[in-house]
Amino acid sequence: MTDASTHPISAPTVPSAGRLRPLGIDEVAITGGFWHERQRANRGATLAHVERWLEREGWIRNFDLAASGGIVEQRRGREFADSEVYKYLEAVAWELGRAPDDELEARLRRIVARVAAAQEPDGYLNTNFGRAGQAPRWSDLAWGHELYCLGHLFQAAAARHRTAPDADDGLVGVAARAADLVCEVFGEGGIASVCGHAEIETALVELGRALGEPRYVEQARLFVERRGTGTLPAIEFGPAYFQDDVPVRESTVMRGHAVRANYLASGAADVAVETGDAPLLDALVTQWRTTVARRTYITGGQGAHHQDEAFGADFELPSDRAYSETCAGIASVQFSWRLLLARGGAEYADLIERTLYNVVATSPSDEGTVFYYANTLHQRTPGAPADPDAAVPRAESSLRAPWFSVACCPPNVARTLASLAAYVATADDDGVQLHQFAPSTVRTSLGGGRSVALAVDTEYPRAGEVSVTIGESPGGEWALSLRVPAWAEGARCVVEAADGSREEVPATPGYAVVRREFASGDRVVLSLPMAPRVTRPDPRIDAVRGTIAVERGPEVYALESVDLPGGADVADAELVADEPPREADGRVVAMLRLREHPDAAWPFGTAQAPASGAPVEVPLVPYHSWAQRGPSTMRVWIPEAG
Amino acid sequence: MTDASTHPISAPTVPSAGRLRPLGIDEVAITGGFWHERQRANRGATLAHVERWLEREGWIRNFDLAASGGIVEQRRGREFADSEVYKYLEAVAWELGRAPDDELEARLRRIVARVAAAQEPDGYLNTNFGRAGQAPRWSDLAWGHELYCLGHLFQAAAARHRTAPDADDGLVGVAARAADLVCEVFGEGGIASVCGHAEIETALVELGRALGEPRYVEQARLFVERRGTGTLPAIEFGPAYFQDDVPVRESTVMRGHAVRANYLASGAADVAVETGDAPLLDALVTQWRTTVARRTYITGGQGAHHQDEAFGADFELPSDRAYSETCAGIASVQFSWRLLLARGGAEYADLIERTLYNVVATSPSDEGTVFYYANTLHQRTPGAPADPDAAVPRAESSLRAPWFSVACCPPNVARTLASLAAYVATADDDGVQLHQFAPSTVRTSLGGGRSVALAVDTEYPRAGEVSVTIGESPGGEWALSLRVPAWAEGARCVVEAADGSREEVPATPGYAVVRREFASGDRVVLSLPMAPRVTRPDPRIDAVRGTIAVERGPEVYALESVDLPGGADVADAELVADEPPREADGRVVAMLRLREHPDAAWPFGTAQAPASGAPVEVPLVPYHSWAQRGPSTMRVWIPEAG
Repeated sequence: MTDASTHPISAPTVPSAGRLRPLGIDEVAITGGFWHERQRANRGATLAHVERWLEREGWIRNFDLAASGGIVEQRRGREFADSEVYKYLEAVAWELGRAPDDELEARLRRIVARVAAAQEPDGYLNTNFGRAGQAPRWSDLAWGHELYCLGHLFQAAAARHRTAPDADDGLVGVAARAADLVCEVFGEGGIASVCGHAEIETALVELGRALGEPRYVEQARLFVERRGTGTLPAIEFGPAYFQDDVPVRESTVMRGHAVRANYLASGAADVAVETGDAPLLDALVTQWRTTVARRTYITGGQGAHHQDEAFGADFELPSDRAYSETCAGIASVQFSWRLLLARGGAEYADLIERTLYNVVATSPSDEGTVFYYANTLHQRTPGAPADPDAAVPRAESSLRAPWFSVACCPPNVARTLASLAAYVATADDDGVQLHQFAPSTVRTSLGGGRSVALAVDTEYPRAGEVSVTIGESPGGEWALSLRVPAWAEGARCVVEAADGSREEVPATPGYAVVRREFASGDRVVLSLPMAPRVTRPDPRIDAVRGTIAVERGPEVYALESVDLPGGADVADAELVADEPPREADGRVVAMLRLREHPDAAWPFGTAQAPASGAPVEVPLVPYHSWAQRGPSTMRVWIPEAG
Repeated sequence: MTDASTHPISAPTVPSAGRLRPLGIDEVAITGGFWHERQRANRGATLAHVERWLEREGWIRNFDLAASGGIVEQRRGREFADSEVYKYLEAVAWELGRAPDDELEARLRRIVARVAAAQEPDGYLNTNFGRAGQAPRWSDLAWGHELYCLGHLFQAAAARHRTAPDADDGLVGVAARAADLVCEVFGEGGIASVCGHAEIETALVELGRALGEPRYVEQARLFVERRGTGTLPAIEFGPAYFQDDVPVRESTVMRGHAVRANYLASGAADVAVETGDAPLLDALVTQWRTTVARRTYITGGQGAHHQDEAFGADFELPSDRAYSETCAGIASVQFSWRLLLARGGAEYADLIERTLYNVVATSPSDEGTVFYYANTLHQRTPGAPADPDAAVPRAESSLRAPWFSVACCPPNVARTLASLAAYVATADDDGVQLHQFAPSTVRTSLGGGRSVALAVDTEYPRAGEVSVTIGESPGGEWALSLRVPAWAEGARCVVEAADGSREEVPATPGYAVVRREFASGDRVVLSLPMAPRVTRPDPRIDAVRGTIAVERGPEVYALESVDLPGGADVADAELVADEPPREADGRVVAMLRLREHPDAAWPFGTAQAPASGAPVEVPLVPYHSWAQRGPSTMRVWIPEAG
């Protein structure tokens, strides 16, 4: 890799080594389409919404109280409430990096000042610990979330440093002082333990990368190496809950709390890259592969348990009790992205795409002001409409809600959408790799002053054609790589050169690589097959045996009861698989039979299933768009008609 | 009904009205067979085991500390720890009622004395509230379990009163003083709320019945009527968790925490019977029916959620995440039993039998010293052997354990097995009804001095023949009714009279009723078909679509990996349904195909299932006996070979 050190990259993850180099949000812009709409809602509605709730719940005011007194008596929110403020600051930092806005800039500065005022002289910063009347600092590493909160502070600071390196708001200094304290307290000879909620590992590496501070990377390394050695106390859910059961480099699969597991894996990947620890990175690749093969929903969602928000056992993937926490999806994107940068491989970008469309995009409503915390794949009862003024305990799939007492997801969605352009493309000495498809512009350097500019035009995922026009190309050959998703058997890739010549290049799943002396005006057109397809589960996934899902492109589809005739419920529907789903008038429609299911006194016996009704064609909706037309039931996996 | 008031019945539930009259454990004795073995283990091993752990965990000592000082600093256990001591006392009371034992009697008296010493002058009794340094009395009705604990005290006292009415140990007085206080504090004009964990309702009625105190019944009525009116504070799981969402008489299905729901329903049934409230009883019958039709496992287990130990939605019955708490099974037996007494109906006795064999008998090992708290129907990974010296947080199905920090189940099993004879038979003016089949003796009066004595001889459930010999019969006709389970299509019932005559009576599911002038030596032989049978689920139970269970008589069978050849796992097994399971050498064997399941990188796609292996005959085991031969995986529902 080249240029990472000479070029200040405005991206969440900027490794000093690895197969691919990330491009910053100043190098890539999403200019239209599906994700642009979501970025617009994020900037235009979600940010203000999040800030309003942070104030309303008193979580920003906690910092004021910590600075001026009264925090012991008046602090509000859970132990990790500080982190939501930091995630919001990170989201704002990326948004300001995308496009300046004086009012937004002023809001960020005001909150940073309130946070900074709460920092103690030695760098300590947490509103829940350490003062007279509070539990002592670091006295509850298992559940206290002190290091977790600081991790989010560090990520906000790294974002700010990379998008506004000359800003004088003080956020980076606050983070650095806190990070210095962490190194002092938890370094060699200090407290030899870890935080119950991994997060600071990846954040310390990133702050270290941003500020050129190797001590932070070293501290992250210590945290990663300590994890899995039993330094945390016993809890009801067992040590796997916070991945303290097996050392990271000895583990073969992800387990326990799905957000913690993915943040930890991200941090471990960062450490492995920075320290050149290939065996650690190999272990993480193995964990990723096993987890994707056995513990991931068709949506990309992870976490099958409500009880402990955890991965279940292999192939334990219930639809109706899917937890699939939004934050776990976001954390999974972060982990996959790090492996993609470190090793390359379309499988990582495939999972990122699947998770973005079917988890991250599912959480917020189109308007960006109500959110799913958990993302069920099967809603058995119609949810009541969300009260726009109520924070619910933790929205578990029956409806989107404006805010939660555990409110990790909304600001996490906000920071992810704000920085999304950074996940679209990468570069290396040899060229540019396009991993995600959206109307976008890419302008970067391949090193040695070789500037490249591209414009991507597409209606994806509405349509499968992705057209890349070369705007600027250096002399000499270079390679433009376009990801061909694993589902896209039969894709084609054609070069329509500015000189009128035409060339087809192979486009099997992986990457279609066009290597040539590009000229301005050359077009590369990737055509992905977008017909709806039926998908069957591995027979070991007991929860969905005998069912079929419908997918189209990167989108998983769902059947919603509001689309069924005559007040039928999704429980009555069976899919006629030999009349495959098709597109009609811009919608995906499927042939269903609707059965009536009269209750028996006892639901187990020898009786045959009731006779099914006549086939009826019914529209399906992209899963991410469900639950926006009033109360309904929904299922992704539809029983196959016998 | 007659005789209930003139005859002190040694049974847990003695209504003053209703269709059937319970028989006490002095009227019915289980003399051999399946349940006798479990009663022997219970008396011989479980009681001492439970008492040892109650001492070891300090839960009895809590009463000493409450009496002598130090409880605030030294109290151990959860907020409901007192109740485990009371349940143990109840178990001992029933055991002493079955057969006296000086040493056991002395143990009971010692513990009663320690409990009594902790009672405060006004009758208040709880080790966790009310003293300086503790939360005030009744300050946390939602989670404090004060009334719940007293409920278990009252049930212990009722058991003691009915088995040793002249005992001078003081337990009944302690309970009565506490009950008086509850009536004073929570009666009309007092605290108009309820306990977060229903239990005191049924207990107050029973103590009122035992002591002839109508105020206790009235207090129970108040608690039942208040439930569902939102008197408890909001909690994360919502008001349905403790059934505070809908008034009992307006509810149509059981919901929320499954133990609470069943204890509440039991108490409501008791109130309905004592107050002649037919609409309330009708509502409870509806709730029972809906719950059995839609929210009950094939084992009779109830509760599909680990998170909140709750019923799920209709047909949400995952096997691998079945919670099916042992205590919910016990509470369900209590509810069904009350409806059976009140209304009659074989369906209630059917569910009791199913739940006894497949939940209550599953919890303890054959030795009675390790227990399941939750009863999964699908174990995906082999559990590690239980540490005989460790209390685990809450055994969730992977193995039986000797004790739990939430240890409701072991003493609940103990009191249930100790009083089990009371669930075998009932009487009315017209005769005797035999609901459960075990080698047993029944001696009672049909009223008016008409004594009846029966002896039941059977190897059930090993064999299907149940032979009832009349030992003593009054003059005139009376009816002997033998339950014919719903699964027993083709049953036959023959009277072999002492005079050599022979008569066949109808034996369709329900009750086979033999009405005649019985003579001593007459035999009634019920023959139930015991061939293994395959059972399919309602198609709405998504979790087990495309699978088959094997049942034989009242027992659900399971496939355990230790019975599979060549180290195969239950995940590899498919059942060949057209070669039905059969009995061979006293075991149930089923024809399986074993597939190999190579991992794909992604478990969702278009690929066909892998080819299956040659059929192989494999033994199944009764579900209640699983996990006693070393670590294994297990499943009740086996995928059907395609």
